[in-house]
Formats: sequence, structure tokens, C-alpha cells
Amino acid sequence: MINIAILGFGTVGSGVYEVLKKDGGIIAGRVGDEVRIKYIVEIRDFSDHPDAQLFTKDYSAVLTDNSVSVVVEMMGGIEPAYSFTKDAILHGKSVVTSNKALVAEKGAELFALARENGVFYRYEASVGGGIPVIRPIGTCLAANRITRVMGILNGTTNYILTKMIEEGQSFETALADAQKKGYAEADPTADVEGHDTCRKIAILASLIFGKNVDYKKISTEGITGVEPEDVEYAEAMDSSIKLIGMARIGEDKVFARVSPMLIPNDSPLACVKDVFNAVMLTGDNVGDVMLYGSGAGKLPTASAVVSDVIDIARGISENRRLDWEDGDSSYVTPLSETKVTCLIRSKEEIEDATCIDIGIEGEKGYILRNFKESDLEALLKREGVIKCIRM
Amino acid sequence: MINIAILGFGTVGSGVYEVLKKDGGIIAGRVGDEVRIKYIVEIRDFSDHPDAQLFTKDYSAVLTDNSVSVVVEMMGGIEPAYSFTKDAILHGKSVVTSNKALVAEKGAELFALARENGVFYRYEASVGGGIPVIRPIGTCLAANRITRVMGILNGTTNYILTKMIEEGQSFETALADAQKKGYAEADPTADVEGHDTCRKIAILASLIFGKNVDYKKISTEGITGVEPEDVEYAEAMDSSIKLIGMARIGEDKVFARVSPMLIPNDSPLACVKDVFNAVMLTGDNVGDVMLYGSGAGKLPTASAVVSDVIDIARGISENRRLDWEDGDSSYVTPLSETKVTCLIRSKEEIEDATCIDIGIEGEKGYILRNFKESDLEALLKREGVIKCIRM
Repeated sequence: MINIAILGFGTVGSGVYEVLKKDGGIIAGRVGDEVRIKYIVEIRDFSDHPDAQLFTKDYSAVLTDNSVSVVVEMMGGIEPAYSFTKDAILHGKSVVTSNKALVAEKGAELFALARENGVFYRYEASVGGGIPVIRPIGTCLAANRITRVMGILNGTTNYILTKMIEEGQSFETALADAQKKGYAEADPTADVEGHDTCRKIAILASLIFGKNVDYKKISTEGITGVEPEDVEYAEAMDSSIKLIGMARIGEDKVFARVSPMLIPNDSPLACVKDVFNAVMLTGDNVGDVMLYGSGAGKLPTASAVVSDVIDIARGISENRRLDWEDGDSSYVTPLSETKVTCLIRSKEEIEDATCIDIGIEGEKGYILRNFKESDLEALLKREGVIKCIRM
Repeated sequence: MINIAILGFGTVGSGVYEVLKKDGGIIAGRVGDEVRIKYIVEIRDFSDHPDAQLFTKDYSAVLTDNSVSVVVEMMGGIEPAYSFTKDAILHGKSVVTSNKALVAEKGAELFALARENGVFYRYEASVGGGIPVIRPIGTCLAANRITRVMGILNGTTNYILTKMIEEGQSFETALADAQKKGYAEADPTADVEGHDTCRKIAILASLIFGKNVDYKKISTEGITGVEPEDVEYAEAMDSSIKLIGMARIGEDKVFARVSPMLIPNDSPLACVKDVFNAVMLTGDNVGDVMLYGSGAGKLPTASAVVSDVIDIARGISENRRLDWEDGDSSYVTPLSETKVTCLIRSKEEIEDATCIDIGIEGEKGYILRNFKESDLEALLKREGVIKCIRM
């Protein structure tokens, strides 16, 4: 019997409960032992729940119950999730999480603490929801130097951009539609400003390159500035605008960025529509690999959480291939030291650039290749220059 | 030190050599130990090779060398690969393979033999080349009942179909082009008749459903009969023709088939072009997940082979989650007991069907939904009926 405790009975926490109820039989077969929820720690009242006896407000009783081997942290945010996670590890319990904020902020520290205490901190569900991402990077692709990762990591923004592309909607209309359908929150800031994508690309880059990539150092631009005209330029260039989190490694530094990008329509990333997510990895041997699926949602995310519980229960986390080390913040290359290829929309001619006229009055598009980021800021301040969209 | 022996120095075998030469340092870091090629067993002469001292024709010396813990079988075909694999297992060595023919034909037997001898038989590279497929099914998706798998599993046929779709080529022209580019062999039968896809979908179905799915029971149709008119119908229906290997599970039986299918263009499978492969899995919790990448090629396939070696070297194959059991041939549902949705091209009207007229003289298209397979054969014999394309 593997006893687990769920911390937080929100969307994903209740999804974990549901997956274990529904598929408990096949999961037991795969583990070779029953996985049982012994506690659900939740401050809200669930006295009417069919399994009301599982609910408790007393986390300290869970910590001192030696029969609990895995804590499933489904609270989100930094505190109290961070303290609760440390307490669990210090009490000899492995922790499984979908909490991207905490993994991005405190991952390296929590991996080290878990190692010291002979337990595991696992996070498959923190990036890409139910999509197999974290383990394939650590196992299937272990015979590769992964040099680049590009991801559509946020379903809300991908849904909004899909509506703008396919139905010609404005950002505001598409956002309202997403909110109506429950795909966007009342306060959509974390999604539309790219903060969510930023945490997720930081996690992927940290795992891939083995050292902590500080998310606070990642240049992040959301989709609030994407206009119907940008979508028209994309179409004319046989491309689609997508919010992309990307990271690549140079000599010994990482470059990472979150921004809307023009993705050619013959790239499989351009085919990722609606609320779906995808991660494209480039390895020195395997070339391009893409992993696609539901990046959010109750049951997809819960299925990734439970897969981590299954791994720990089977004892196949018996190595540290998914951990990363701490890194100082100079590990991330400042944007100004990199080069960019981009489309400049401008009312005045841009020299040394390929011009595209799609018939919008008073402006043209100019493609700049391998342009210094350090010169871009000055260019964007020039009279007549409207904006830059990265490619 | 992990000593391995490579059996067969063809494309993939030499790729394994190359990956270990090139990325040996990072692989050693990930394993925590050096992975060393101690022998390359090959009947051809390689006395001019820079590592000529590794080559041997004497497999029995490899078998009796107790310092060799993993044999990498890169010979292909059933014999002598089957005998060599059994010999290795019986001598206490794990075996890693990319040999789809052998895994489909003898997988269940070799897993059992490996279990008896306390070693592993691993096959990540046998399906989808370098794409992470086998492990994600066994681990990341372990909290799902996978109910269906659909795959574009052969790069040669996908390249030919892409040329037919995008450039309006005939099958013959596209095949000649693929042969010229080295994507198709001089005798392309195994690819274009679907035999290669059939072995691969049998492996996936066996892994997913846990019991051996006999590839000989899988109804298999290749792409030699695909005509430009079929491509026109697909376009008119906003779909693309793809060679699909698919399997789904019913109450306690498996249904599997290989055939050209009309895939809607809004499915990510339709975006899989040229020589790329992809596997789409449907789980009860995760929904649709797609894994995409290079399904063949020297280094992509070798990187999957080496990932299996790394797993064994790390000792994280310490369970049998990727094995399947033997199954009798009645496990696969006869085609006649299933239903199909398809497009019928016909010169005579088909009743109870949706008609599509794309302007080809003398014929129309008719969409039949949930039509009994057992009635399809009779329908196809009716006067005026040209052909059936599955959807």
C-alpha cells in the first residue's frame, strides 16, 4: 500500500482524486501495489463530500504519519506551498507537484533538500499539463545535446491567438470569448503578459541545461500588443503568430525569451491550435522532436501528477536525472548580447532589409536578419517605426 | 565502466558508434559511468577503420566475456538476430534493439526470457526512430487507459504522399523522387505496401494493451493504389491522405489496421509532412497526445538506441513496465466485426450516403458513416463503385 496525501482540493487536486478513483485498478496493476489517498489537506469545508473522512485541516498530523510516503502539493503559488513542501521532505516524504511558480523559484533548492533526505521532488505536471515532457527530456533524449527548446506553453494565449488568426478577431474580442468559455481568468494578466510561459520555459531550460535558469532574467513580452495587422503580415508571410517561450545554449550561457513570434506554417508548431500546447526540442542527434497535447485542464494535468506518484511508488525515480543544480544569475545571457531576426512594421523605409508591402496604407514591413538586439531599441525609437515582431 | 557490444555495423550500428564517440562525455556524466564499445561484431572487413581493433567476427567470444553487460543488436530481420539475441540473454546480457521485425515477431518470448535471466530487452528505437514513444507510454501516460493509437510510422510513404499532395505528383513520380533522394529503397515493397507500418503498429498496440498483438492478423493496405483523384477528394474535404497505422481496444479485444486515411487538416497528424513520423495517443484522462519527430535516419535512431543503453546502465529499467505478455491470435478482432466511416468513389449513386461532387467526370464521392466492414466488400464489388478511402 502506497499512502499519499493531497494538499489542496482545487481543480487539479480534485482531478488527482478522480483519476485514482476511476483508474485505481489499472494503476495498482502497473505499480504492483495499491495507491491510496489517506489524507486531503484542505482548509475549505468538504463535510458533504462522499469521502469526507479523508479531509483534514491538520497538516502536522500528516507529516508525523509515517505511513504516508508521498505528498501531492496542489496548492499553487509560493507560500504556503514552499514551507509545506520543505516540511514534507524533512519528514522523509517525496513530493509531487504541478506548481510551476514554486519549481521555477525554488526547484534547485528543493531538489538538493530532497537528495539530502533520500526522497524525490517531481514536477512532470508543471510544464505542458498532461503532455509527456519532463521525463522524455531526461530519458529518451539522454543521448543528445539539446541545443534549443521552443514551446507553446500557455493554452489561454494560444486560444486567443487562434481566434485572432482564424476569425480575424481583435485581441480584446478574443480575450472576452476566452473568458466566456472559461479558458481565461477574470484577471488574465499572468497568461496574456507571458508570466506563465516565462516560468515554464525557465523550468525546461533549467532541466535541459542542468543549471538553474532564473526566470526573472528572461525577457518576457505577452500578447496584449498583438494587432490584427500583425496577423495579416503573418498570413502574407505564410506564417502564424504564436506566443513562444524559447531557450538555447551558447558556449556556457543560456539565452531565453518569451515573445510573440512569426512561425512558418510548415513548422508543426504552427499547427498547434486552440488551447493545445507543444514543446519542440532540437537535439544534436535526434534533430527536431515535438511533444503535443493538453497543456492544462483537470484530468490531463492530474494524469501527469499521478504518473509521478506511480514512478515514485515503483521506485524508478532511483536517480537524479530530472534534478538541476543551482546557477548564478549571470548564467542567462542579457538580451543585448544576442542577435535577432524580425519583422519591423514602419512608415519610413528601413535600410538593408527585405521589404514586404501587404497593402496597409502608410506602412510597410521590413525583415531584418541577424540584427543586433542592442541596436533594436534605438531602431524602434526612430520616427515612423511602428513595432517589431520576432521570427 | 559499462562495456557494450554492437552487432552489425550498418547505418544504425555505425550511428551508435558515432553518437558514443561524439557525445560520450555528456553520456558518461548522465550515467555516472563511462559507456564503452568493447566489440563490434561484423562479418564485413573493417581493418581500415580507425577503431579496427574493436571489430570481430567471433560472437562467441563476446558472449563469454563477462565484462560485456549490454548487446546492441543492429542486424535487422529475424535470423540470425533472433538466435544472437537469445544467446546474449542466456549469457546474462541485456539487449537493446531497433529491430521492429524481431520485436513484433518474438517480443513477448524475448521479454519472458529476459525476465527469467534477470536482464532487459529494450526497443525504444524500433518504432518512430528517435521520437520518444515507448517510454512515455509506459511512464508519463501510466495514469491513463489508452484507448486508441494512430500513427504515421513510415517516413518513405509519408514523403511520397506529401509530394502527391503538395506537388500533385502521381505515386510513380513521387516514388522515383523518393528513391533518387535515398528516402526509398530500390525495392520499396516493405514501405509502400505498409508492411513496415504494420510491424510498428503491432508493437505499439502490444505495449499499450499489454498483450501480444499478432501483426499477421492486422489488415494492411499500402499506398500503391493512391491516385491523384484521391488527393483531390481529400483537398475538397479539407483533409490530407496519410498512411495510418491504428489500433483501438474494445471490451477485451484489439482492433488494428494499416491503410491510407483521410485525416482532417485541423488534426495535428495532417501537419506531419515529408519523412517525419508521429504517434497520436488517446488516453481517458490526458485526451490526445502527439509525439513527433524523425522516424528514421542514422543519428536519430541511434540516439534512441543509446537512450536504452543509458537506462540499463543507470539501472532504471528495474521493472517490467515496457514488457508485454503473450496473447493468442484471437486477441485481434477480425476486420469484418468492425464498423467504418469512409469515402466511396463511385460512378453510380450510393444510397444513404452524403454525396460530394468535386467535378471529376463520371463519378462522385459518397461518405458512409458507421458502415459495417462485413458489407463493404460486397459494396466494392458493385458495378460502378471505384474504391473506398477510409476516414
